[in-house]
Amino acid sequence: MAVYEGPVQDLIDELGRLPGIGPKSAQRIAFHLLTADPVDITRLQSALQRVKDEVRFCTVCGNVAADEKCRICADPAREDAVICVVEEPKDVAAVERTREFRGKYHVLGGAISPIDGIGPDQLRIAPLLTRIAAPGVREVILATDPNLEGEATATYLTRLLQPFPGLTVTRLASGLPVGGDLEYADEVTLGRAFAGRRSVDA
Amino acid sequence: MAVYEGPVQDLIDELGRLPGIGPKSAQRIAFHLLTADPVDITRLQSALQRVKDEVRFCTVCGNVAADEKCRICADPAREDAVICVVEEPKDVAAVERTREFRGKYHVLGGAISPIDGIGPDQLRIAPLLTRIAAPGVREVILATDPNLEGEATATYLTRLLQPFPGLTVTRLASGLPVGGDLEYADEVTLGRAFAGRRSVDA
Repeated sequence: MAVYEGPVQDLIDELGRLPGIGPKSAQRIAFHLLTADPVDITRLQSALQRVKDEVRFCTVCGNVAADEKCRICADPAREDAVICVVEEPKDVAAVERTREFRGKYHVLGGAISPIDGIGPDQLRIAPLLTRIAAPGVREVILATDPNLEGEATATYLTRLLQPFPGLTVTRLASGLPVGGDLEYADEVTLGRAFAGRRSVDA
Repeated sequence: MAVYEGPVQDLIDELGRLPGIGPKSAQRIAFHLLTADPVDITRLQSALQRVKDEVRFCTVCGNVAADEKCRICADPAREDAVICVVEEPKDVAAVERTREFRGKYHVLGGAISPIDGIGPDQLRIAPLLTRIAAPGVREVILATDPNLEGEATATYLTRLLQPFPGLTVTRLASGLPVGGDLEYADEVTLGRAFAGRRSVDA
């Protein structure tokens, strides 16, 4: 039930359309903005405007970028020989936070999901093949999500990339999350952890 | 660490300043907006603009309003004799959802909180006294929050309003939440529930 008047309810509705924001949070944010300094609203509005106007996608990897190339593709210190394939720009950020990876990325823009009408043609797979065809690419790390769509995409890409001579295709390890509890692991994860067990050095 | 480029990070920062939105949610929303239809961003922007331009506060009760008076103050079907005093406009909405109250409201704009520099003078108490001084007001229901600041405000208002002849000052009942578990009630709430116990009719 719309208990507020015109513009307030409209703002609550718009905020409620954002991912992860329920009606209660939307109401809380709307009332915060109502009583906040109008400058705060202006700042949020202009941040939205700049995202609309200025954000582009890297012509090489598909990551978000401020220029034609994203910061990572433009960085000469990053290895060209290893390409980490992810679904979305936010996955680039997740991998970057590990500080484990010094190669480059390729953002597919999603995962194969027939139910959502997303097949290989809707993903940035052709540009990936072009990049791999260039000399010097040694390894492609498939870092799609460990769910049904991500696995399907990884399997599809593996078949596609296997014929490339001299190219290693790898997949991120599945297993128990660090800090997790064996007792609470689901059986698929635990099964993967068994299948992927490694010998330990004394 | 700012892992994104200019405008994306700025939007994440602005979203993260909203109440109840942590860095993870802010990132999720920002990426949703990045890949969403630009029309969605435009709608959110215009909702923000309209809240800035059009929302006013009722000159009578202090609730949010689209006109000089809010919908409730302008409604002739609502009783003038009972005034429910709340801290914020969102509390009006909470009471309205109960459908238990047919009187009018008075929004204080906060609660007495010396630590935040909010004393009685920062609240809309003078307009409340003017309203009560008018003939016909029979009861004031103090519906401030059941926390330290809300209780202090209720106590302050009780002392202030007690001298008015023919005026009943009431406070919302404290007690066990409906659907709650006695075992998990904190001792203050349980103590209040005992103090406020009522005889039951067979």
